[in-house]
Amino acid sequence: MKVFIEPIGRLINEFTKLPGVGAKTAQRYAYKVVNMTEEEAKNFAESILDAKRKVHYCKICGNFSEGEICEICKNRTAETICVVKEPKDCVAIEKLAEFNGVYHVLHGTISPLNGVGPSDIRIRELLERIKAGGVKEIILATNPDVEGEATAMYISGLIKPLGIKVTRLASGISIGTDLEYADEVTLARAFVDRKPM
Amino acid sequence: MKVFIEPIGRLINEFTKLPGVGAKTAQRYAYKVVNMTEEEAKNFAESILDAKRKVHYCKICGNFSEGEICEICKNRTAETICVVKEPKDCVAIEKLAEFNGVYHVLHGTISPLNGVGPSDIRIRELLERIKAGGVKEIILATNPDVEGEATAMYISGLIKPLGIKVTRLASGISIGTDLEYADEVTLARAFVDRKPM
Repeated sequence: MKVFIEPIGRLINEFTKLPGVGAKTAQRYAYKVVNMTEEEAKNFAESILDAKRKVHYCKICGNFSEGEICEICKNRTAETICVVKEPKDCVAIEKLAEFNGVYHVLHGTISPLNGVGPSDIRIRELLERIKAGGVKEIILATNPDVEGEATAMYISGLIKPLGIKVTRLASGISIGTDLEYADEVTLARAFVDRKPM
Repeated sequence: MKVFIEPIGRLINEFTKLPGVGAKTAQRYAYKVVNMTEEEAKNFAESILDAKRKVHYCKICGNFSEGEICEICKNRTAETICVVKEPKDCVAIEKLAEFNGVYHVLHGTISPLNGVGPSDIRIRELLERIKAGGVKEIILATNPDVEGEATAMYISGLIKPLGIKVTRLASGISIGTDLEYADEVTLARAFVDRKPM
């Protein structure tokens, strides 16, 4: 005797494919779906198909886009390009509403251990954008981890000779935290990068 | 400038309808869907529609069923009926593979504060099953909380006069836990229900 009837078992299995979802959580989600109205379930299913069907990558920056060129590339000047690892990083920065330049999504970072070299991520496309002219600053906003730092160093080495300003997001102690709880590497970095006031 | 493009924003919104899913988690799920293959997204969407379309409630016990009568009611004798609050409780018990009687799902418990009275849950249907004959024992397996206990007491009061054995799942200290960490109510119950060895 199987524990779940087939349609529920199948749905649970689908939910476990989502990141961080185990059997118990998937089960809760599946029960929720069974208890939805027909209309709600239809909307849910359609939104999944839609996200897959309608979401493409912008030909210029590599960010999510409904059309060939994303709204950001269409509406902003490309004087400052913020280089990020993944499309979701653009979302995090857009939420600030502080940056009004454009993005360049690398779709990965250099990681020799995982077999990802400079030619596997969108560095060539970045250089082409720069060569097309008009770019004044490149902000390297890859994550402050080993791969992100290595990628930033690598790109910086390629772009600086072109005479373009290259900056990197500041690392240091998070605002609002206690010095006591800052990790050692971050605290050490905050010392090295201390600034006059 | 909105932060998410429409199809992603819509999918995130749909995911937040799942229990315990906030904006950040929904975002992670949505990115996962965008990165799925066309085939995977289609399977996911179909399994949602299928679960909604194909899952019904068994006419006899009220558990999830693909047909009119569930596989458990079809294949087992109804000498022992285990009364539970929700279909998912059947799943928890079926996983043990210890119980081989049938179920009766109440679809709720008596809760005057929430306006749920005895006639709002499937107690009448349980009595009808008993009157149809052949039932030897009723196991009351509602949760050991206020509503579950009250419901068990109420049903017990109705069935005992019919001369049928009524039992209740044992409450006590969980196997493997420390006495120190058992909550007071549970520990007190374990004392009251202590058994000779």
